[in-house]
Amino acid sequence: MDTHATTLRADRQRSAARPAQPVRARWAQPTRVVLIGAGFGGLAALRELRRRRVAGQIDLTVIDEVNHHTFQPLLYQVATAGLQPQDVAHSIRGVIGSRTHVGFRLGRVVGVDWPRREVRLADGDRVPYDRLVIAAGAVTNDFGVPGVTEHAFVLKQLGDAAALRNHILRRFEEASAHASHPEGTLTFVVVGAGPTGVELSGALAELTTHVLAKDFPELDTRQVRILLVERDDLPLPGYRPRNRRYARARLADRGVEVALATGVREVRGTGVLLNDGRIVASRTVVWAAGVRPHPLAEALDLPLGPGGRIAIDATLRVHGRPEVLAVGDVAAVTEGPEGPHPQLAPVALQQGRHAARELLRERAGEPPRPFGYVDKGKMATIGRSAAVAESPGGRLAVRGFVAWVAWLLLHVAFLVGFRNRASVLFTWAYSYLTYDQSARAVFEARGVADGGP
Amino acid sequence: MDTHATTLRADRQRSAARPAQPVRARWAQPTRVVLIGAGFGGLAALRELRRRRVAGQIDLTVIDEVNHHTFQPLLYQVATAGLQPQDVAHSIRGVIGSRTHVGFRLGRVVGVDWPRREVRLADGDRVPYDRLVIAAGAVTNDFGVPGVTEHAFVLKQLGDAAALRNHILRRFEEASAHASHPEGTLTFVVVGAGPTGVELSGALAELTTHVLAKDFPELDTRQVRILLVERDDLPLPGYRPRNRRYARARLADRGVEVALATGVREVRGTGVLLNDGRIVASRTVVWAAGVRPHPLAEALDLPLGPGGRIAIDATLRVHGRPEVLAVGDVAAVTEGPEGPHPQLAPVALQQGRHAARELLRERAGEPPRPFGYVDKGKMATIGRSAAVAESPGGRLAVRGFVAWVAWLLLHVAFLVGFRNRASVLFTWAYSYLTYDQSARAVFEARGVADGGP
Repeated sequence: MDTHATTLRADRQRSAARPAQPVRARWAQPTRVVLIGAGFGGLAALRELRRRRVAGQIDLTVIDEVNHHTFQPLLYQVATAGLQPQDVAHSIRGVIGSRTHVGFRLGRVVGVDWPRREVRLADGDRVPYDRLVIAAGAVTNDFGVPGVTEHAFVLKQLGDAAALRNHILRRFEEASAHASHPEGTLTFVVVGAGPTGVELSGALAELTTHVLAKDFPELDTRQVRILLVERDDLPLPGYRPRNRRYARARLADRGVEVALATGVREVRGTGVLLNDGRIVASRTVVWAAGVRPHPLAEALDLPLGPGGRIAIDATLRVHGRPEVLAVGDVAAVTEGPEGPHPQLAPVALQQGRHAARELLRERAGEPPRPFGYVDKGKMATIGRSAAVAESPGGRLAVRGFVAWVAWLLLHVAFLVGFRNRASVLFTWAYSYLTYDQSARAVFEARGVADGGP
Repeated sequence: MDTHATTLRADRQRSAARPAQPVRARWAQPTRVVLIGAGFGGLAALRELRRRRVAGQIDLTVIDEVNHHTFQPLLYQVATAGLQPQDVAHSIRGVIGSRTHVGFRLGRVVGVDWPRREVRLADGDRVPYDRLVIAAGAVTNDFGVPGVTEHAFVLKQLGDAAALRNHILRRFEEASAHASHPEGTLTFVVVGAGPTGVELSGALAELTTHVLAKDFPELDTRQVRILLVERDDLPLPGYRPRNRRYARARLADRGVEVALATGVREVRGTGVLLNDGRIVASRTVVWAAGVRPHPLAEALDLPLGPGGRIAIDATLRVHGRPEVLAVGDVAAVTEGPEGPHPQLAPVALQQGRHAARELLRERAGEPPRPFGYVDKGKMATIGRSAAVAESPGGRLAVRGFVAWVAWLLLHVAFLVGFRNRASVLFTWAYSYLTYDQSARAVFEARGVADGGP
């Protein structure tokens, strides 16, 4: 406790510009915690801090650019018309419920006024804090490849997935309407064969075979080409070789062409230029090659670690700013035996929970504890009845139907909120039995000009 | 049969510019039917003509601007976050299924080349027909009131409903974030107290009370004002007075302010100007005041009947063009004891089916039959456990819970396709039990520039 109190005091002395306020008097008040981002990390912290017995100790404000948590691992199913956007979204205000010690602010964080301890929003407002938790997550990394921003689809937000679904279905309509459609109308290129790329290209192949082949009997669906491009020599880097070979074989079964040991040099409006000089004509390039920390990491003038992630200590506090914690993809532990952890949902989730508990421990006068990652293994699905799952370190592995059922159950369990879980289960059961995918309506939200955020 | 054959021949002789083709040889081929529009009328015709035994007689092409049928009566639930857009949409290609004698063409019809018997599309393509069925439906009627197009929301398409949902939820976020929000941020004006206006304002009131009051505990939801404006002296014009008084009372219970005998003189970005000179500040004006025929009616150079609807005879054929049929909101029967029929879904549905049967009768050499409308009564819901239903002519009427359950069952039964029906039932059951409405994520489809239709 002593160590901790000292840290706190020292820190408060550094912030000279902060409105003077006796530590003790302020301490009797709830600690004002501001949480930036409601991804896996932020949501886990929120859930930990929304418990009623925390009221009076913590006064939490969650800030996010959108009003919902997005369950990103299933966005690919929205993009392939298997699920509806709201199935993989959960209202942040719904998660907060009626707790009066937790509030939500829709807005974009543009900076932090460190001396005054205020988060600055794009609309000019400022939100004061005593403790700050940065869980801003990651954005798509184009690795400097030209044309990605202008011409490639990504899968980070609901709107990305809805736009990709509209685009894919429109390409089929276009090919159906015009026999002389532009080259590459029915060629879909997915860059990056990590879980997202594998799952998306597998789902796209199944959408084509089971749904679109029936919907478009006038089209020869052998024209459809799905190309998955991967720099490594097998899909699913980081998985066991046997699982990676399995994934390659199952993708091939489904008609997905896998270009291994291949990089992308440029994305154009008409296709991609591969690093072997080949040009693949395509109107649809999806970039799933990797992520980088949210630009906020760089904008905040904090010490950065590997990959430009905010450098944090083993307790998840920012070096030199013990009142600031950072979790998930935006941060990297740069000390101790563990870090940096991979940029994965389970890490963010566990770190978010740990950060929340750190705040409560600090409040209770208990010493900080280092974060310890519990690796529970990983899984990826290639499609219907085909998935891979492996234990930490890859000592145990399953493939096929059993892994696929495990994948299903785990994803349903992780989906936030009963409504979504039941709806997704229902939709999946229906699709499994009928081979149908019903979310095929193409539309854009379209109304009068909107002055709002 | 003789009469009919003569009509056909005479008609064919009129179309001198049409590529010469012996009637008999052509007649051995399937009749090429083009159907414009997949609303209630078009969908009913499609369903009648997709039967397998019709193959060989009919070769049907459905043209629509979107790839789905929209179940418009439930769009208000999408706008109030109760249902997801895809729940009230059904893929047209899904309805067609594997029938090879029916095809779909996504496109916007801009005209018809009458001499050549070709439908002209916005992309320059032409679709030839032997028989044409126009089921283009209706669009919003602004009755010449300035500002409706620029500033008011409508509820005709999925995108309209999604945009309105986004807008409503953003107004609450705005009011929450800024104590000094613009006047009228939480004032919602619905113009027109027909079923759509009544259902929307009732649902909006319940969304506020049951969901948003919990989501936004920091807001005083007594600030929320829902104003339903109606020219007539009671809501639900055309219903029995007792039902109309019941609707007024149930709306009042829910906190909806009903301005009766009131018109709107102008819609502005900041609110509405009523015809009594009052200005109501509002950022959200929904125009549900009425419909007019799709602009195609006027563009086609056909004889027009009341309200600018295409004038059709009792058999639903266009006067002077027996090879052209028109059904639903876009058309009006201008002869016989029945017409013109009201612009209602059941009329469109029955006319669509009748038009399809006329085509089959013609093909079989049977004489045409006049359309007879079977009025099955009408119903409208005000909200949870409150609805009105009445028999044709209004001799029998029910109100309250029984009418509401009848409304629910009828709407689920009418929803096209099992998947939607089950999903809607599930969602409704969940909402009824929990008072929750889960489709509250705000997002827009957002991707790279799209060259497609």
